[in-house]
Amino acid sequence: MKPRELILELAKNAKAAAAILAALEPKVKNRALLAMADALQDNQAELQATNQQDLEKGKAQGRSAALLDRLLLNEKRIQAMADSIRQVAALDDPVGEIYDMRTRPNGLRVGRMRVPIGVIGFIYESRPNVTSDAASLCVKSGNVVILRGGSEAINSNRKIADVIAEAGTRTGLPGGAIQLVPVTEREVVSEMLRLNEYIDLIIPRGGRALIETVVKNSTIPVIKHYDGNCYIYIDASADVTMANRIILNAKTQRPGVCNAVESLLIHQQVADKLLPVLIPALEKAGVEIRACEQVRAHFPQLKQATQEDWITEYLALILSVKTIESTEAAITFINTYGSHHTDAIITQDHNSAMAFLNQVDSACVFVNASTRFSDGGEFGMGCEVGISTDKLHARGPMGLKELTTSKFIVFGSGHTRE
Amino acid sequence: MKPRELILELAKNAKAAAAILAALEPKVKNRALLAMADALQDNQAELQATNQQDLEKGKAQGRSAALLDRLLLNEKRIQAMADSIRQVAALDDPVGEIYDMRTRPNGLRVGRMRVPIGVIGFIYESRPNVTSDAASLCVKSGNVVILRGGSEAINSNRKIADVIAEAGTRTGLPGGAIQLVPVTEREVVSEMLRLNEYIDLIIPRGGRALIETVVKNSTIPVIKHYDGNCYIYIDASADVTMANRIILNAKTQRPGVCNAVESLLIHQQVADKLLPVLIPALEKAGVEIRACEQVRAHFPQLKQATQEDWITEYLALILSVKTIESTEAAITFINTYGSHHTDAIITQDHNSAMAFLNQVDSACVFVNASTRFSDGGEFGMGCEVGISTDKLHARGPMGLKELTTSKFIVFGSGHTRE
Repeated sequence: MKPRELILELAKNAKAAAAILAALEPKVKNRALLAMADALQDNQAELQATNQQDLEKGKAQGRSAALLDRLLLNEKRIQAMADSIRQVAALDDPVGEIYDMRTRPNGLRVGRMRVPIGVIGFIYESRPNVTSDAASLCVKSGNVVILRGGSEAINSNRKIADVIAEAGTRTGLPGGAIQLVPVTEREVVSEMLRLNEYIDLIIPRGGRALIETVVKNSTIPVIKHYDGNCYIYIDASADVTMANRIILNAKTQRPGVCNAVESLLIHQQVADKLLPVLIPALEKAGVEIRACEQVRAHFPQLKQATQEDWITEYLALILSVKTIESTEAAITFINTYGSHHTDAIITQDHNSAMAFLNQVDSACVFVNASTRFSDGGEFGMGCEVGISTDKLHARGPMGLKELTTSKFIVFGSGHTRE
Repeated sequence: MKPRELILELAKNAKAAAAILAALEPKVKNRALLAMADALQDNQAELQATNQQDLEKGKAQGRSAALLDRLLLNEKRIQAMADSIRQVAALDDPVGEIYDMRTRPNGLRVGRMRVPIGVIGFIYESRPNVTSDAASLCVKSGNVVILRGGSEAINSNRKIADVIAEAGTRTGLPGGAIQLVPVTEREVVSEMLRLNEYIDLIIPRGGRALIETVVKNSTIPVIKHYDGNCYIYIDASADVTMANRIILNAKTQRPGVCNAVESLLIHQQVADKLLPVLIPALEKAGVEIRACEQVRAHFPQLKQATQEDWITEYLALILSVKTIESTEAAITFINTYGSHHTDAIITQDHNSAMAFLNQVDSACVFVNASTRFSDGGEFGMGCEVGISTDKLHARGPMGLKELTTSKFIVFGSGHTRE
């Protein structure tokens, strides 16, 4: 089948399933989710055997050890995938919630009802667990999903999708609720991104190149996550001990993720107190520091920061450090060079905290807490689909609610307009 | 100046103004809005003289009387424009609202703050009052606006924008908060639609051709309003008197607008009771009826409906009428042929009402009320920017809240992640 015919068939199946899935009761969706989780564990041996094909292909292609590790499915990881589906099943159902109800002066009752978006296209790379994570979040929120994983994991993804789709259909989901594009041709993605009639939303997850390609070619709305170049600003009034603890946590607790801190702005009045403790602590933790001239005047051993450093998401044990003359200057600097993802202020001053909260133009703005908390689970949203750096529809961690839309519902008793 | 240079300059001005406007206090924005309203009335004579140029050009080009009427600015209309700005000033300020605050088990407080989107591009046709309406809504919601009206009203739009921008800047708005593209070249729009770095959202208002062009060419997110092909379904259990009253209101009270009803589905069990009253009443009101075979069996004088009628937004005194065998069939028909704008059920049966509410996939779903209530003002939202038929970010009437986004705000006391 040609790429266009293939994806069109998947999209038509998806559209047909959408109305049925949207109307399913929570208990049916949850039963299907639990069956999907069980099926993954029941088919563990077969999943591992299929995964071996991707691993061997990856080795033959000379892929990095890190990528091969991301590809790997072992017993523990399959268990984690199953548990993650069970956690999604246990979350509150977002569909059907009625809110903002008000009675108008004429007696008309107007409110909103939360409903699924419809058909979601998920385009992702590397980790095969995204296949079951994305599918379970879509099922729970009443959305049909078309999955398109990377070629490096095609065999694993196909097997996972087969197993969970079969289990879902067997226990009450409509056929077509969970589909994976079974081929790796790139034309399939190009065609998929233009099926506005069938697909309501595209969510890409992966590297910047993938996301930029999707954004450039999609005529369907896209919610995306670009860089997490997170800043921490240490205000003049900061508690130095707290600042040190938060900086070390935000940089070193898990440096390879989007909510790790990448750059530090330090008010010049607190630099002399903070730096003599902070710099050795960071160095001891193995962090490479790239510093401005003012910092290097006291610590000449440090590497000089370049303009490039202020806009870079290292995803590594590297931190750029700069002194700054005021909270206003820090806010302007962050709005100019940051990536509008998550930025934090460490301060004891109320006015500085409020100015930072109000004026930093980022998806998440923190006062006196590590940027590492920027996460759907930590925010109490149960789980997340990703962290949106867009401003429309969803901004910041996206949970089940962000996979829904609303409709206005209006109750009258024969109302006509004058 | 070349189109690209011109629009780039406007966009840069806009971006520079956005951070300042976003941080203005409500009282400053309201003072500016009231000054803008006064300025329109103070400059009434000059506005009318300028408007005359557009009217004469329109006449010379042989434009229709309806279009010339839409272009006209007279004393009453200028007063209405000013009053509309004053109403916007009186609305609650949407910016800075904090909601969904919760305390996590670790003591971290997580919530959301409503903030402006940034820079909005408004692309519209015909009526010059949209210039001041759109500008006032954007100012109130803390957004900078770049206005691009149709060539038919260019002189009037330029004058209105000059007057309100001057009044706004004089009373505290940053320069660049309200700008109008002063030329009519189409290339300006093409360039504008690709300035993702400066413009956050495009809202087109006008005919389908305009909206389709914008959607096709924009790399910036667009919120749009396509057709309002609204349906009313009369359930078997409907109160026939109520049904008649609502249908007449929805069709004849203002037939040229998007929330007027265009098609009727009548449960076959109620047709014999309803039609003998309804058909003469509609005919008396001057409505052309296009009916299915079953209706024509009893009213052979009626025109035959074609397949085209079920997907047509007439915006005129025309109504297509069809009998149907069940609520489920009506829901499927509306989801297939309607435009997902506003659809109503007339019923006394709870199960029918709930099935219709849950399953009709439209921005607004009504029970026992005229579709004519589908309007931001009638919904208690104060005013509206338009009615979105999209599913993402805004669906249905868009008020000031829909011109905002949110950011997560997080308060800690030195929290670090384990």
